[in-house]
Formats: sequence, structure tokens, C-alpha cells
Amino acid sequence: MDDGPRVCSVARTLDVVGERWALLVVREAFLGSHRFDQIQRKTGAPRDVLAARIKKLVEVGILERRLYQHRPDRYEYHLTPAGEDLYPVITALRQWGDRHVSMPGPAPGVFEHICGGLDPAVLVCPDCGEPVSLGSYRRREQSTGVPRIG
Amino acid sequence: MDDGPRVCSVARTLDVVGERWALLVVREAFLGSHRFDQIQRKTGAPRDVLAARIKKLVEVGILERRLYQHRPDRYEYHLTPAGEDLYPVITALRQWGDRHVSMPGPAPGVFEHICGGLDPAVLVCPDCGEPVSLGSYRRREQSTGVPRIG
Repeated sequence: MDDGPRVCSVARTLDVVGERWALLVVREAFLGSHRFDQIQRKTGAPRDVLAARIKKLVEVGILERRLYQHRPDRYEYHLTPAGEDLYPVITALRQWGDRHVSMPGPAPGVFEHICGGLDPAVLVCPDCGEPVSLGSYRRREQSTGVPRIG
Repeated sequence: MDDGPRVCSVARTLDVVGERWALLVVREAFLGSHRFDQIQRKTGAPRDVLAARIKKLVEVGILERRLYQHRPDRYEYHLTPAGEDLYPVITALRQWGDRHVSMPGPAPGVFEHICGGLDPAVLVCPDCGEPVSLGSYRRREQSTGVPRIG
């Protein structure tokens, strides 16, 4: 039982969005790009790859199609509630890049919280309010193997 | 200038870790798997793919090699400080999976915060303490295009 790949929500999430273009499509949806050509331009994804990624994101329930034109029918792609729940994933990716990947090109935009704050968001335990990091969690209900995450 | 792919820290991060196996290697490092065979077993990654992903993670400074045996020389792979900063990324991916991907297989482990709390961590603005979500940020220093993230 300890020998197979780990049963894990990280892996399950990556089964759905564990690919560069898929996550950039989600980023674009958060940023307000909802039409294929716009998403293509803003991501730089090859069109056939992009079409496949969008199709899968619709199938798994992260994006939904909305008809915006008849004859020919054309659709926009919007985040479902499950898609909107990827906000912390995209934010965490952005913040890591802000901190650790400064090249190539100019610095990306600065994001200001609606309170006016400019500091990166932090992940905290909602019960005690402390920031979480390596060592913050113990794994429960696991009799063998490594008992900690982080 | 508005026509090229977006200059963005999300994309830059995905250039480095935007791939399923790379992120699962990082997950394993957080969970205490540091040797090639153990990482291979826990991720289920093909060995050649895994070797390539680990090599790249070392090159970009997310993992570091530590010699643990001579003749033949064998190495463990540990997170650098930059690698440890991926904690919010892995946590956000895990929490999304906990919430939205319940199949297939049994429910993954339960993680308990060191305070005893069982609620998922939340991303908050450190300046006002409010949770961040869609609409929480305004983009600064951008004269054209879409002014908001989220």
C-alpha cells in the first residue's frame, strides 16, 4: 500500500490543470480575456493546443461557454465557481514569479489590493491567523510513511 | 505592445514549474522524499522524465543536491529557500483538489494545522487581513489593456 503513487489532491488538481497553457488560460479568464482570439494573443499558445486546453477546461467544469454571437455561433469562456476557486493557485504562482524570476523582460505590473496595500498576499490558518509554511501541518489518519506535509 | 503575449510572473513561474511531474517532485520534497527511487515511487513518474525534471529543478535553483553516499556517489534532493517558497503554490493546489476533485480513489489524508485547526488555509492581504479573491486587486502602472486581475 505504501508502494504506489501517493493518493493526493495535488496530483488530482494537476490532472486537471497541471499544464502551462491550461493555467495561462485560467489566468486570462481572471484578467478578463474571454474570447479565443484574445486568449490566444495574450498567452501566445499555439491555436490547436489552446483549443484542446479550453475544451478540457470546459469538460472538467473550470470554464463555461457563453454564446455571444449567432450565425456563426461564437462563444466566450468564463470561469465557473470552481474555476474562480483557482484564484489562490494563480496568485501563489504570480507571487513566486515576482519574487524569484525577474528575467527576462521588464518587471510585470504591480498589483494593489483594494485596501491600498502593496504587500503580497499571505496564506494563513483561518483558525489561529498564523501564516502557514513548511512544518505548519501534520498529516492525520496515516499510519505509515511520512507524517508531515511541509 | 498590447499584441504580444502578456509579460507576467505567472507565465515565468510556469516556465520553471509548469508541468505536472515537476510540481509533484516539489510536493515530494515537502513531504520528505529526497531520494530518486522514493520520489519515483511516490509520484509514479517515468524514470527518464523524472530525471529530466529533477535536473531542471536543480539548474533553476529550486532543488539542491546533497551527497549522501560515496562510491558510487549518490545524491539527495532538497528544497532550496526558493523551493520552500513554493509552499503556497502546493498548498493552493492541494486545497483546490480537496474541494473539487473527489474521484477517483479514497479521500486523501487530512491535514491538521499545528494549532489544531482543520480548516483550509486562506490567502489574505497582510495589510488589512481580508481574504483575497476575484476582484481584490487592481493592476497599477498599466496604461492600456485590462486593468484588473481577479
